[in-house]
Amino acid sequence: MTITTPTSIVQSIVNSQSLSMTQNFSWLYRGTAEIFPQQTVVENLSPDSETDQESLENLLANSHRPLRVKYGIDPTGAEIHLGHSIPMRKLRAFQDAGHTAVLIIGDFTARIGDPTGKSEVRRQLTEADVAQNAQTYLDQVRPILDFDTPGRLEVRYNSQWLSVLDLSKIMELLSTMTVSQMLAKEGFAERYKKESPIFLHEFLYPLMQGYDSVAVHADVELGGTDQKFNIAVGRDLQRHFGQKAQYGLLLPILIGIDGEQKMSKSLGNYVGLLEHPFKMYQKLQQVPDKLLSQYFELLTNLHEAQLPDSPRDRQKLLAQTVVKQYHGEKVLDEIEGGEVPEFSLSGVQFPAKLSYILSASGLCKSNSEARRKIQELGVRLDGDRQTDVETTFAAGSELFGRVLQVGKNKFVRLVP
Amino acid sequence: MTITTPTSIVQSIVNSQSLSMTQNFSWLYRGTAEIFPQQTVVENLSPDSETDQESLENLLANSHRPLRVKYGIDPTGAEIHLGHSIPMRKLRAFQDAGHTAVLIIGDFTARIGDPTGKSEVRRQLTEADVAQNAQTYLDQVRPILDFDTPGRLEVRYNSQWLSVLDLSKIMELLSTMTVSQMLAKEGFAERYKKESPIFLHEFLYPLMQGYDSVAVHADVELGGTDQKFNIAVGRDLQRHFGQKAQYGLLLPILIGIDGEQKMSKSLGNYVGLLEHPFKMYQKLQQVPDKLLSQYFELLTNLHEAQLPDSPRDRQKLLAQTVVKQYHGEKVLDEIEGGEVPEFSLSGVQFPAKLSYILSASGLCKSNSEARRKIQELGVRLDGDRQTDVETTFAAGSELFGRVLQVGKNKFVRLVP
Repeated sequence: MTITTPTSIVQSIVNSQSLSMTQNFSWLYRGTAEIFPQQTVVENLSPDSETDQESLENLLANSHRPLRVKYGIDPTGAEIHLGHSIPMRKLRAFQDAGHTAVLIIGDFTARIGDPTGKSEVRRQLTEADVAQNAQTYLDQVRPILDFDTPGRLEVRYNSQWLSVLDLSKIMELLSTMTVSQMLAKEGFAERYKKESPIFLHEFLYPLMQGYDSVAVHADVELGGTDQKFNIAVGRDLQRHFGQKAQYGLLLPILIGIDGEQKMSKSLGNYVGLLEHPFKMYQKLQQVPDKLLSQYFELLTNLHEAQLPDSPRDRQKLLAQTVVKQYHGEKVLDEIEGGEVPEFSLSGVQFPAKLSYILSASGLCKSNSEARRKIQELGVRLDGDRQTDVETTFAAGSELFGRVLQVGKNKFVRLVP
Repeated sequence: MTITTPTSIVQSIVNSQSLSMTQNFSWLYRGTAEIFPQQTVVENLSPDSETDQESLENLLANSHRPLRVKYGIDPTGAEIHLGHSIPMRKLRAFQDAGHTAVLIIGDFTARIGDPTGKSEVRRQLTEADVAQNAQTYLDQVRPILDFDTPGRLEVRYNSQWLSVLDLSKIMELLSTMTVSQMLAKEGFAERYKKESPIFLHEFLYPLMQGYDSVAVHADVELGGTDQKFNIAVGRDLQRHFGQKAQYGLLLPILIGIDGEQKMSKSLGNYVGLLEHPFKMYQKLQQVPDKLLSQYFELLTNLHEAQLPDSPRDRQKLLAQTVVKQYHGEKVLDEIEGGEVPEFSLSGVQFPAKLSYILSASGLCKSNSEARRKIQELGVRLDGDRQTDVETTFAAGSELFGRVLQVGKNKFVRLVP
């Protein structure tokens, strides 16, 4: 079931209504790249029965308990962006339909790091790092998920079950797969072909992710389209341990505002959830025409029919809708009313220290308060946390148009 | 260093004497297929130093403590044969030179079995099975190893260190090797090429064997020529954990008395250590000419120069020497004096029960004692333990020439 254009969404809404007359599953298919398996054989029913095969939609329609919908995150402390919001928004849709979002914090692998020391991504974190990073993550997704309705959110740390596995259990996990199956995985396949080394412990990562599904009894796992293999491993392991296998629901990887590459902080083509709303508003007005439909589909609740015709108007509506979602109508009104305070750098002599600009602009009362705020991690420039009290800018032109922010509510736009 | 013929042994004795004028290392090289590495770089010494590279022979000559010489066995309960005696004899040679034999009982893998349930070889054993099988093994090798001199023998169960490994440690073990390195291993390479499935847990076995070397601080590991890869994994793991890497000493796999295939109980070409001495004597007189030199080299302490010229005389000397080793001169004299009692089956009506033959021959006082002895596992036919009280033979010709034995000392040769 591959649905990426609004037309096909409409089609699947129609389909889903014909399958289940009483419920509307458009929330399930909206923006969804793939649901697998499309049908699954239900055991203990006669093969002639009309319901001997079940789709996720049937399960949703007929389940007498909330389904457990798993999504795993790495507590690496990254500031998250609109690309990351996509599975979170789908989790929220499941929550709103009465199901339980099970958010897995992958603290186990983060705490052991990469044993070869070769992976930048998997550097070793302390227990305190992990706790703080998980909290940072949860703070960022608070506007998206339902944290308040009882039974709608479970946050679980996978060290709880992974740290107690012993060698015999690990052998059991490994014995469920063959070398060829693992080497067929995207990523491994190319590396093996290119003869670049694949270390044996790397085979454990998909199995650990899969075992998470066993541990939390997942009914559905969400992930990007690059997660199909890992989610399928979870299905195999659940069956191995006598559970019903989860469904996989895959979501597209968002293309960045450059219209070229996947959204990523390091590529600079991202819109961060912690960015100042004014900056978010500005960036979303630059989204290329060709991406607008997908951005609306994945990042808002608007329907194609509600969108204006002109690309410029669409960009503006996108910016308004997303800013309103994350910051509310009042902030949007302030931005649109030109109420973002500006600070002219014309009176500042460069090179100038960040701390000086903070006090000169009135964001901080003094240079020493400015230094303290930086040390307390309360200062951001275009959403990027500033951590070095010695940061110095060579020229004002480096800063023109950027938003300098202290805490949640104090900010200025820097102008010439 | 590949030495398989007596000529090359003599050569290496000469070499070893020229290397180390004061010690004779012929015991080290006798029957040895390979020692690796031939030289190993010793750290913290000047590269100019004459002793910056060390051979096992140098280490033996210069060590101020007994070396730890590892050999691992599977507690599968197999009755062992002369092929198995070869590494044991080499262990004994190390013991006699003042070193410590470290016998590893592989109880961990025996107790978990093969997780896929597909391997006949790795069927799951209980703790009691393992303990009994280990005892059976030790009883059989008692005539070979020095069990009595303090400090010469250490028996270790590998569950002691393997059962306490957690996932992070296991990831560390796995991270020391790549998929390509593992797939290069004999056995895996062919299976991968033939596309027969290799299950991921199989990669753990060499690493577990290697970690045994870390756990016991092995200086040398003995094994058959098929063990080179696993012993090399042990070397890598020891270095990974900051230890000096062990030497590997490989011994040939013995060809059976059929002169064709490796000695194996299932192929019927074996001489078991628990067989009746008369049977052992008979079988060793059938060893083909082409194998005689190797049998003398691997199974006795005689030198080529001490052997008679005629093949018939050589066969007889081999039989006499081996029987004397395992059963002593008195038993050999009895056999050669024709003192093996015979029981004629001419008066027995077939089909006949084993229990009837035991009582008819006088080995047991009654049919009911015969049944009890079978149940107590005290009855052997040509060394094979008889466990079924209902065993029945269709014709006397099945038994002609075979030795029926009760306990250690009561036996008859069955004749027409």
